[in-house]
Amino acid sequence: MTTSDASHRRGRRIEGFAAVVPAGGAGTRLWPLSRAGAPKFLHDLTGSGRSLLQATWDRLEPLAGAERVLLVTGRSHAAAVRAALPGLPPENLLLEPSARDSMAAIGLAAAVLERREGPQAVLGSFAADHVIDDDEAFGEAVAQAVAAARTGEVVTIGITPSGPATGFGYIRSAGPLAVEGAPDALRVAEFVEKPDAATAAAYVAGGQHRWNAGMFVVGAGRLLDHLHGQLPALAEGLREVAAAWDSPRREEVTAAVWPGLVKIAIDHAIAEPVAAAGGVAVVPGSFGWDDVGDWDSLATLLPGASSGVAVLGEEAGVLGLAATGVVVAGSGVPGRTVSVLGVPDVVVVDTPDALLVTTREHAQSVKGLVGAWRERGREDLL
Amino acid sequence: MTTSDASHRRGRRIEGFAAVVPAGGAGTRLWPLSRAGAPKFLHDLTGSGRSLLQATWDRLEPLAGAERVLLVTGRSHAAAVRAALPGLPPENLLLEPSARDSMAAIGLAAAVLERREGPQAVLGSFAADHVIDDDEAFGEAVAQAVAAARTGEVVTIGITPSGPATGFGYIRSAGPLAVEGAPDALRVAEFVEKPDAATAAAYVAGGQHRWNAGMFVVGAGRLLDHLHGQLPALAEGLREVAAAWDSPRREEVTAAVWPGLVKIAIDHAIAEPVAAAGGVAVVPGSFGWDDVGDWDSLATLLPGASSGVAVLGEEAGVLGLAATGVVVAGSGVPGRTVSVLGVPDVVVVDTPDALLVTTREHAQSVKGLVGAWRERGREDLL
Repeated sequence: MTTSDASHRRGRRIEGFAAVVPAGGAGTRLWPLSRAGAPKFLHDLTGSGRSLLQATWDRLEPLAGAERVLLVTGRSHAAAVRAALPGLPPENLLLEPSARDSMAAIGLAAAVLERREGPQAVLGSFAADHVIDDDEAFGEAVAQAVAAARTGEVVTIGITPSGPATGFGYIRSAGPLAVEGAPDALRVAEFVEKPDAATAAAYVAGGQHRWNAGMFVVGAGRLLDHLHGQLPALAEGLREVAAAWDSPRREEVTAAVWPGLVKIAIDHAIAEPVAAAGGVAVVPGSFGWDDVGDWDSLATLLPGASSGVAVLGEEAGVLGLAATGVVVAGSGVPGRTVSVLGVPDVVVVDTPDALLVTTREHAQSVKGLVGAWRERGREDLL
Repeated sequence: MTTSDASHRRGRRIEGFAAVVPAGGAGTRLWPLSRAGAPKFLHDLTGSGRSLLQATWDRLEPLAGAERVLLVTGRSHAAAVRAALPGLPPENLLLEPSARDSMAAIGLAAAVLERREGPQAVLGSFAADHVIDDDEAFGEAVAQAVAAARTGEVVTIGITPSGPATGFGYIRSAGPLAVEGAPDALRVAEFVEKPDAATAAAYVAGGQHRWNAGMFVVGAGRLLDHLHGQLPALAEGLREVAAAWDSPRREEVTAAVWPGLVKIAIDHAIAEPVAAAGGVAVVPGSFGWDDVGDWDSLATLLPGASSGVAVLGEEAGVLGLAATGVVVAGSGVPGRTVSVLGVPDVVVVDTPDALLVTTREHAQSVKGLVGAWRERGREDLL
């Protein structure tokens, strides 16, 4: 890194901000590339040369500093995460004994942060497997969200829709928040579920709805206090684990407490009820964002998808005639080729032990295939 | 083989009949399974455990006897053919120095047979890469054709259409031939080209048209005399090569003569002009037949194709959901799986270095892919 790069990165640092990255979820709809043992966040799905997890690190490390990035993941992914993120301080890799949904994962990081830095520390939670196309604009939105969070708000970053997507939840905003350092922040009126196409079109036309990207920025103590108001046992359990985390008693306490923690998403535990009580703000994010939920979603992110055959992998090995769609040549076998002839919107995912052929229209149903292979006893494919 | 099997087979022997099998053609429309180096006839395309060439041998050997089956193929396929057909007498493997179309291939066999057995020997020529589903009925048709050929006719076996196929040429018949031993034989009025759908439907409804399966039964001398009438230089060249074939001068004469032989199909050289002159008869064949010209054609031959996913290969490795079509899992890689989700009439051909995804509708265009790979310099795939 040159001196000017380093200066630039230091210049983007957000004072008092810690980044929390829950790295979970198997990404089953991206099977057979994404597997239980090698989930979505460990894959380079954009052809950038960096996995989604690494790209998330690259985006957050300049804002928080390496020592203030906390990564929460399952124990089975520890080695892969360490290899992917050599700059992550060992004590900032928080390993869950079992998956207990996003509230426990983010809450554990909040509770550890509260112990280490005090309740006023502001954390921002960002999934390890989303794609963002403008790190600069993302950083500016986070800076505003942190400013708003310092006033006690639970803050989300809502993505300005690029179209009437039906695959995302939406955030409806009310009036301006009027907080110093967060000029664009708005009060959140409510979180709404994934809409149908007509509703989504109305949302986009109305201008008050933004995509819920699952980004939450909030004071660590504030988050746990809100959680205590909704689910006191969960908040107390997380604080109990955190109290022992940086001590010799971590294993003992975690083993005793963790299995009893309720499984719930942070959206249901915090975002929705606190928004209903008027305690959530939204900073609009004008950057490109996608959760890369399935092959159809990925197809829109790859160059060439709209005009012909998009390739994730070695382009020289892929040939499309009379075909528009996405081919993912994930096998990486040298010299192996994929030819697509006259199948519109086809999705081909070529891995060494599993080949998937489907269409973008059926992308949501890939989970069903995974279930069918499980029924056939092919756990090795999952 | 039990004694009764042997008796049964001897019982089907047709006196004075020699089988000629031209094994040529790359089967490009069955790429990437069929390759220049491993053409269609070397593959088991029906899941029977025998290649098309071996199935052809299994069908003809009982009728002609091993010592009277002549196989004509390119030098590059010699080793593969010897391995596939251990019962073929070495002197009956006729290796062409270069491909000069079906007239030269069959004509060489006819000329060699004429030298070895005399002009009255009756040969039947049958492609090495067609599928026939009733060897008994086939044998009965051949026996009638041989009887008719003994009277000097050029005899073809015309397949009773199972539907209005547009992918085959047709044979229009006139009245009965009235020859002893060939009660079903008819005079051929003409050979007609592949029809459009409406014409094909009219052919099937009329009952006078049968599929041209490229099967010709004729006296060896008679065939060469007809050829001499049409293309004297070709007939003379073939007889010159044949005169040297079973002598030390084979290589020398072949090298001098073969490259100058005209490339022409037997249909154009013999069948069409001789039919126009009233010299061709047809024995109707009521057995199932297919030339397995492309993946669409193959799909109809595999069990399960009409109701779901047909598999050529390991069925346990293939899973289809909301999909009807044919999957050919040709790779043979143990444990490798193919999943098809919601792609109607898809064709998936999985080989180690080339994966093809197309639809039955586009089966005829597979040649275009092969050409495109050639343009990209991937001769290794062809």
